[in-house]
Amino acid sequence: MGCSPILIDGTWAEPESTTARFRAHDPATGEALPGEFPEISWPDLERMARAAQGAARELASIDTERIAVFLERYADLIEERADAIVAAADRETALGAEVRLAGIELPRTTGQLRQGAAAVRDRSAGGWSMPSIDAEVNIRSRYEPLGGAVLVIGPNNFPLAFNAISGGDFVAAIAAGNPVIAKGHPAHPETTRLLADAARDAVEEVGLPSGTVQCFYHAPPEDIARLIAHPALAAVGFTGGRSSGLAIKQVTDAVGKPGYFELSSLNPVVLLPSSASADLDGFATGWSTSILMGSGQFCTKPGLCFVIGQEVAEELAEAVARSFDGKPDSILLTGGLVDSIDHGVQALQDAGAMLMAGGATSLEPGFRYPGTLLMTNGRTFREMPDSMQRELFGPAAMIVACDSEEDLLAALRTLEGQLTACVWSAGASDEDHALHDRVQGTLRPICGRLLENKMPTGVAVVPSMVHGGPYPATGHPGFTSVGLPASIRRFAALRCYDGISPARLPSNLV
Amino acid sequence: MGCSPILIDGTWAEPESTTARFRAHDPATGEALPGEFPEISWPDLERMARAAQGAARELASIDTERIAVFLERYADLIEERADAIVAAADRETALGAEVRLAGIELPRTTGQLRQGAAAVRDRSAGGWSMPSIDAEVNIRSRYEPLGGAVLVIGPNNFPLAFNAISGGDFVAAIAAGNPVIAKGHPAHPETTRLLADAARDAVEEVGLPSGTVQCFYHAPPEDIARLIAHPALAAVGFTGGRSSGLAIKQVTDAVGKPGYFELSSLNPVVLLPSSASADLDGFATGWSTSILMGSGQFCTKPGLCFVIGQEVAEELAEAVARSFDGKPDSILLTGGLVDSIDHGVQALQDAGAMLMAGGATSLEPGFRYPGTLLMTNGRTFREMPDSMQRELFGPAAMIVACDSEEDLLAALRTLEGQLTACVWSAGASDEDHALHDRVQGTLRPICGRLLENKMPTGVAVVPSMVHGGPYPATGHPGFTSVGLPASIRRFAALRCYDGISPARLPSNLV
Repeated sequence: MGCSPILIDGTWAEPESTTARFRAHDPATGEALPGEFPEISWPDLERMARAAQGAARELASIDTERIAVFLERYADLIEERADAIVAAADRETALGAEVRLAGIELPRTTGQLRQGAAAVRDRSAGGWSMPSIDAEVNIRSRYEPLGGAVLVIGPNNFPLAFNAISGGDFVAAIAAGNPVIAKGHPAHPETTRLLADAARDAVEEVGLPSGTVQCFYHAPPEDIARLIAHPALAAVGFTGGRSSGLAIKQVTDAVGKPGYFELSSLNPVVLLPSSASADLDGFATGWSTSILMGSGQFCTKPGLCFVIGQEVAEELAEAVARSFDGKPDSILLTGGLVDSIDHGVQALQDAGAMLMAGGATSLEPGFRYPGTLLMTNGRTFREMPDSMQRELFGPAAMIVACDSEEDLLAALRTLEGQLTACVWSAGASDEDHALHDRVQGTLRPICGRLLENKMPTGVAVVPSMVHGGPYPATGHPGFTSVGLPASIRRFAALRCYDGISPARLPSNLV
Repeated sequence: MGCSPILIDGTWAEPESTTARFRAHDPATGEALPGEFPEISWPDLERMARAAQGAARELASIDTERIAVFLERYADLIEERADAIVAAADRETALGAEVRLAGIELPRTTGQLRQGAAAVRDRSAGGWSMPSIDAEVNIRSRYEPLGGAVLVIGPNNFPLAFNAISGGDFVAAIAAGNPVIAKGHPAHPETTRLLADAARDAVEEVGLPSGTVQCFYHAPPEDIARLIAHPALAAVGFTGGRSSGLAIKQVTDAVGKPGYFELSSLNPVVLLPSSASADLDGFATGWSTSILMGSGQFCTKPGLCFVIGQEVAEELAEAVARSFDGKPDSILLTGGLVDSIDHGVQALQDAGAMLMAGGATSLEPGFRYPGTLLMTNGRTFREMPDSMQRELFGPAAMIVACDSEEDLLAALRTLEGQLTACVWSAGASDEDHALHDRVQGTLRPICGRLLENKMPTGVAVVPSMVHGGPYPATGHPGFTSVGLPASIRRFAALRCYDGISPARLPSNLV
């Protein structure tokens, strides 16, 4: 079996510049899967950049209806080929074919593509391009495509709904009218290949420029940096881990191009005394379910729970430990993630946290880790905010037992920027309400999405969703990567027409 | 005469940490003006950061009507004190009291403040905060204040309308509900002091938090960097030169905070053959007026003119040289600017450009430079795009004589990102239109504002204005620093409320 080709300018082509080959692994067994995929280098990336440049020029004057039709046709093709895509994704991620991949993630993916098509067509209130017309001075403006390609770098944890070739960033970049160069995650290359093939076929059927959608799997960091600096490249969308994201961010910052980074989040949950008294067991069940969901590999996994009182903390820890008990160890996406979470759990203990459940390396085959719970106190947390705010990507979380309301609020004030933050309260008394208000006031500025009596794990794809937040959750607090049309505007330039003749104006500015 | 105080937390206070004192200069004579102003360091900046943090917390729950009233009252006070403010600004900038400062810039400044007030009140289509409500799933979002202060770093060239304490960035940051720490430009500190005093009085009268508006003039770069890294600081707005702007951008990038940078622009003008034939003299008059306006110290000065044909280029050069002839040398804002433009004019000649007018150091007193014109050809321009694209801040510009349409388009394709680009055409024939379309297609993606038969120097403060553009014109192509409400959203965070009880929702999300 030969090495897979890459998608350049509408064609599945042999790379000219393969520097290495790699295989994905079955996370359930740890064994390498059969297909080989190429790590490419600059000559192939430059070919992609050139093709994307041509596509960007053509897309600037295309009837946008064709972009909408493409997004819909691509969704249709994914559905037609769903069995193969889901089977490949399950082999490469072990996330579960029926429930998670076929039942939830694939419909979400096609739903996002179709919402993107609707956003392209939507002219109500101007849609995503927000046209503004000052007719008396003949000045007009709107958001437009960037005029170059968007490099989308996809994460490991959602092989379909966040895949670089089919996920939210892809939809947003294409809906704005930009070509996409997709770098699929090397943990699920066959899934990416199948999706890219459907995208390619849809591009061809609909007659979009052949360089509209291109795809590769792996390249050395210095070549990715060179691609980002290339004039054909206009922006980057990245979802993944903090350290690799920050390395890419340095590159986009240095060349002055917009980069959107979803980097990390602990998603703090604050359990107020009223809620702890009302139904601690119910809360514990909901929280532990959220911790284990997707093997804990959600950006929105609630990784920290703040409570007031040592007794409550211990009771909660026991309930969570009970609910972990007897559950099989979670299968993680890669062996590296097992090492990383194990290292993180150890580092937190070294910094003073206590291990309440799990934490031992799994004895089963493949990439596994048990449901794991740590506990610390408010003072330790706020005195070592850097050590204590360590993201554990996988089925692990920590309770922070605070002494008092003041201790709680002081600890919350040391939190970094987050995607989400939740307050749980059954408050009926004025005192409960007053504390709730203070906690909400403290959490509101540091998170993109604030929740009440609700776990953050689900991310509804609706216009008002914000999947974003202040650094280091993302690179900019003014954007969201989920929710249309807002996510589209990340990949758009604001452009003004001053004194331009009617015949030379875009149609929605006349 | 003692050293001026700085504005900290509502009070004009002696700095605790003065590291040096400086004076502004009268640009017309080059002599130091009487007032002394402090260069401060970290202890005072830290006091400002703390006060701003408290103000940000209070502003989060304030009735925004008070912010609107503040902006209006501040505008009123500027008008009441206009004589003193204009006199100080004219002494420090020599821009001209009656026409430029009192006639144009001061009304623009108060107009921006009042537009900011209107934008705070405007709930049509949700106004700047763009509320989005998905009632069926109880998810809502909107733009909100950042939760920290905005550091505004003002430029030298508009002592009122872009002053850090009264200009567009100030209005946008305050209108969003953020406190501002203003760093006035050291070339016009007395103007800044008078404006800051009016702002302070308005804050007090209206009862905004005392830390809402603070002001200093000068601090070492490492202390400014420390301020930007402080948790109380949420964003930066910078207008000024490219090298100092990029130094600040490195700091905001490293700490992951939004920074908005207006850095540089050559504002290319393309004179198509149809327009050159129709009225070359009229064009030359308009262009030379724009080059000399404000002594050429506009961000939107049209610094490059592309023509086709050597004869046209020479005729244009002669006409511009004639219109420079007999005009007094332009007074620049600082002595450093004289050195800088002289150095730039020399560097362009070293790279192959020919000097067609001006270029000699002025013999008159003060900071002066003559109207200056250079010329190069299309091939030289595109073969040395870096050397040739040098911003000459002051009364100087360059003609690029292209051989052919293809030479012109190739030269235009080497242009960096620009604030503006203009096409001049009197085209009646199909050929003219075809060329115009190709030129517009080439310029559109590289500029924020595209103009037709119009010089870019004027920047109308209307909602559809875009004063922005791709790097290195600014740091991000998706924003504008002029035009409300769009400019406000730069200083706002996108925030979602998921499952929040009605009583805890902001009023425009209920």
